[in-house]
Amino acid sequence: MSDIGVIGLGVMGKNIAKNMLNNGYKVSGYNNTYDRTQELMAENIPAFRGFEKIEDFVNSLSVPRKIFMMVPAGAPVDSVIDELIPLLDKGDIVMDGGNSFFKDTNAREEKLNKLGINFFGVGVSGGSEGALKGPSIMPGGDKESYGYVGEILESIAAKYNGEACCKYIGPKGSGHYVKMVHNGIEYADMQLLAEVYLILKNNGYSNREIAEILDEWNKTEVESYLVSITSIVLKEKDSKSDEDLIDIIVDVAGNKGTGRWTSIEALSQEYNASLLAAAYQARINSNEFELRELLNGKISVGTGEKLDIEVIRKAYSLGKTLAFAQGFGLYKNASDRYDWNLNLKDIASVFRAGCIIQARLLQDIMSAYEEGTNNILTLPVFKKQVVDNSADLRSVVVEGLKAGLPLPVFTNALIYIDSLSADLLGANIIQGQRDYFGAHTFQRKGAEGFEHHDWGASE
Amino acid sequence: MSDIGVIGLGVMGKNIAKNMLNNGYKVSGYNNTYDRTQELMAENIPAFRGFEKIEDFVNSLSVPRKIFMMVPAGAPVDSVIDELIPLLDKGDIVMDGGNSFFKDTNAREEKLNKLGINFFGVGVSGGSEGALKGPSIMPGGDKESYGYVGEILESIAAKYNGEACCKYIGPKGSGHYVKMVHNGIEYADMQLLAEVYLILKNNGYSNREIAEILDEWNKTEVESYLVSITSIVLKEKDSKSDEDLIDIIVDVAGNKGTGRWTSIEALSQEYNASLLAAAYQARINSNEFELRELLNGKISVGTGEKLDIEVIRKAYSLGKTLAFAQGFGLYKNASDRYDWNLNLKDIASVFRAGCIIQARLLQDIMSAYEEGTNNILTLPVFKKQVVDNSADLRSVVVEGLKAGLPLPVFTNALIYIDSLSADLLGANIIQGQRDYFGAHTFQRKGAEGFEHHDWGASE
Repeated sequence: MSDIGVIGLGVMGKNIAKNMLNNGYKVSGYNNTYDRTQELMAENIPAFRGFEKIEDFVNSLSVPRKIFMMVPAGAPVDSVIDELIPLLDKGDIVMDGGNSFFKDTNAREEKLNKLGINFFGVGVSGGSEGALKGPSIMPGGDKESYGYVGEILESIAAKYNGEACCKYIGPKGSGHYVKMVHNGIEYADMQLLAEVYLILKNNGYSNREIAEILDEWNKTEVESYLVSITSIVLKEKDSKSDEDLIDIIVDVAGNKGTGRWTSIEALSQEYNASLLAAAYQARINSNEFELRELLNGKISVGTGEKLDIEVIRKAYSLGKTLAFAQGFGLYKNASDRYDWNLNLKDIASVFRAGCIIQARLLQDIMSAYEEGTNNILTLPVFKKQVVDNSADLRSVVVEGLKAGLPLPVFTNALIYIDSLSADLLGANIIQGQRDYFGAHTFQRKGAEGFEHHDWGASE
Repeated sequence: MSDIGVIGLGVMGKNIAKNMLNNGYKVSGYNNTYDRTQELMAENIPAFRGFEKIEDFVNSLSVPRKIFMMVPAGAPVDSVIDELIPLLDKGDIVMDGGNSFFKDTNAREEKLNKLGINFFGVGVSGGSEGALKGPSIMPGGDKESYGYVGEILESIAAKYNGEACCKYIGPKGSGHYVKMVHNGIEYADMQLLAEVYLILKNNGYSNREIAEILDEWNKTEVESYLVSITSIVLKEKDSKSDEDLIDIIVDVAGNKGTGRWTSIEALSQEYNASLLAAAYQARINSNEFELRELLNGKISVGTGEKLDIEVIRKAYSLGKTLAFAQGFGLYKNASDRYDWNLNLKDIASVFRAGCIIQARLLQDIMSAYEEGTNNILTLPVFKKQVVDNSADLRSVVVEGLKAGLPLPVFTNALIYIDSLSADLLGANIIQGQRDYFGAHTFQRKGAEGFEHHDWGASE
C-alpha cells in the first residue's frame, strides 16, 4: 500500500509527489487526464504507482488514507471531493494544497467533517521549484488528525537550520488564510522592488547596476528571496535580441486572486493594510489601457533630487517592515475574529525558508511575538527602524513624487507612519460632517459617550 | 384606502412619510413598536393613519399595494419581508429604502419575484432633512412595475431646476448599488475636505478663516453641499465651552459600512478606486489606538512651503473630480459586469440635488456621458483639469508630505494620475518576478501571447 496519494499531477502536483518520493514515501498518483499520470510513471520511480481510475487510486492507499490534492482552486476542488466522498472511509484525510479561498476551505472542512472525513486546507508556497525541493507549508484543519499527516508534510517542507518550515497552523481554513496573506505581503514587497527599480533607473543606473546594488543590499537586513530574484531578473539577457530581457517585457501585471482576497479581507475586517492594497491596485492600474493611453506623458513633472543609495535602501527596508507589519497585524485580527488561536511566531518561523517572502527580518518578527506583542512595530528594533528610517522614506517619496514616479507602496508606507504619528488626522472634521448631515453623533474630548449637535444654530 | 404605506417610523421613515403626506398622498404607517406610530398619529395629520397590527396596515392600502420600508439594513429587512409575504397579493410592490447591501437586494428581489411580488431596492440620500424636504432617490427593480411607484417617488424627491432627482436606475440591486458607490464618493470628498483643513490649519489659518476660504471656494467649480457644510462645521461654537466645536471633537471617525462595501466591490471587480479606498482606510486608521499611541509624535517631520490658497483649491478641485471619476468608473464596470444597462447620465442627474454629494461638477459629468464616453476623464473639460491642475496637486502633496501631514486621498489622487501618465510603472519587474518563481509567463513588447523564460540560465 502507498503511504500517501497525490491527485493532480500538473507542475506543482508532480513536484510535490517527487518530493514525497525523494523523502522515502510510497506514493500513488491520479490525474483527471491519464497522460500526465503516465508521464510520471514513465520516469520509473519504484515507489510511485499511477492509476487511471480514482477507485483504484483510493484502494491503493494504506488506512487512514492520506490524499494530497493539488488541483486548481475553485470548482475543480469540489468536483474531486465529490468524486472521493463515496470512496473514502471515516478517519481518512484529504488535503487541499492549492490556493483555495479560506472561506471555501471552511465550508469544505465542515461538509467533510460531518461525514467523518478529515479535511486540511494546506497553504504551500515556493513555486514549482519549492514544491520539488522543499516548500513552506501551512496546514490548517483538525489538530488531532494532524498527527497522521504532519510527519510527511514536515519531511517534504523546506528546512531552516534543520527546522521544518511546516507547522500546524490552526483549525478550518486558517492554513489557506495564512497562505493568502503571505501572498498579500508578497505583492507588497514585489511592488516595493519594482518601485526601487523605477527610482534607481530614474537616477541613471542601468539594469546591471541596479542588480548589483540589490546584490549589495542582500548582505544587509533586507536580505530576502525577492531581492535576490529581482537582481537575477534584472541581469537577464533576452535570447531573441541583444537587449536586457526586462526591457522587452510589457509594463502590465496580472494577478491570480490571492492579493485581491487579502485586500478585501483587510477591508472586511476594518483593518488598514494600505501597503498590501496599494500593491494590488498598482497591478490593476497597469491594465487601465484606455486611461493610460489618454494621459500618457500628459502630466508635467519636475526632477527629484538624486538620492544616496543608502537612503533608498533604508526607505526600502522600512517599507518592507511595514508590509510585514500589516500582514501580521491581519493575522492577529483574524485569529481574534475567527477564534483560531494562531501562533504568530510559528507562522513567521514557517516563512523562513521555502516560500516567496522568506527574508531575514522574519527572525526579528519571531522575537516580537516571543515577547507577546500585538503588533511587531512595538518591538524595539522595529520601532527604532520606523523612527530612524522615516526621514529616508520621506526623502524617497518626496523626490520621487516631484519627478512623477508612480510609487504607490512607498508613498502609502509614508502615509501609514505619518498617520500613526500625527497629532491630528482631520477625523474630527469627518465626525462633524457626519453629525451634521446624518445625526451620527460625535465624541467630545475628555467625555464618555456620543453627543449630537444642532448644527448651524449658533450662526 | 391609503396610497402608500410606510414601515419603520424612525427619524428617516417618519420624515419620508411626512414628505409623502406633504405631497398630497394618503399614507398608512406601521412600526414594530407602536409608540413611534402613535407619536406620528399625535400630530393629527388627516391623511395619515397609524396601525398597531401589520395586518390592518396592509389591509388599509389600495391595490396594488405599495409599501415603503425604512428599517435598518440586514436582518430587520428580512424579518419585515417575512411578516409581509403571507399578507400580500401578486402584483403588490415592496420597497426597501435603507442602505441594504446590493447583493442582499438581488436575493430579496429574486425571492419575492418568485411569489409574484415586486421588490425595489431604493437608494435614498439626503439624511433626515433630505428625507423630509426632498432626498435624492435611486430605485432599482422591475422596470414595468416602476410605473406604479415612480410618481410617488418622483413627487417626494428633491428637484433640480424642476426636474425630480429620482430616476429609474436599473434591475435588481442596482439602486442600492448606486447609493453604495454614492457613499464611497462621499467618503472620499469628506476626507479631501478634512485634508484641506489640515493643510490650511498647518499654514496658520484659524477655523473661522478656513470656513471663509471654503465659502469663497463655493463660488467656483468646486461648489457642493459638502464644502458648504464643512464651512458650517468649522464656524460652530461649542455650547459647553468657549471653544470652536471642531476643536473639542475627538480625532477618530466611524463608519456604517457603505464606504467599506464600495472599496471591497471595487477590488472584487479588479477596479482601481484608490481614492475611495484611501478615504475608508483613513477612517479605520484613526481607530488604530495602540499604534497611534506608540508612534505619536515620534516621526520627525520638516516644514512644507506655505502654498497659495488658489493652488490648494485647484488641487482640491482635481481630487474631487478624480473621486467622482473613480466612482462613476465603478458604475460603468458594474453595469457591464452585472448586465444592468445603467444610464450614467441619469445617475449624475439624480445626484444634482437632495443628496450628500450634490455638486456643480455633476453637470459636466452629465455632458461627458451625453458624449457616450466610458470614463469622464476623457471629456475635454476634465482632461484639461487633470493636465492643468496636476502641478497644483503635486505641490500640495509634496509640501504636505514634507511637513508630515497625513493626506491619504490627496496623495493617492496624485499617484493615480501619475500612474496613468507615466511611461513605466515597473510592472515589467512584476511580470519578471512572477515568471521567475511561478512560471506565470510574461508578455513581450510587440508580440502576441505569453512566453516563459528559463531565468538565470544566461548567468
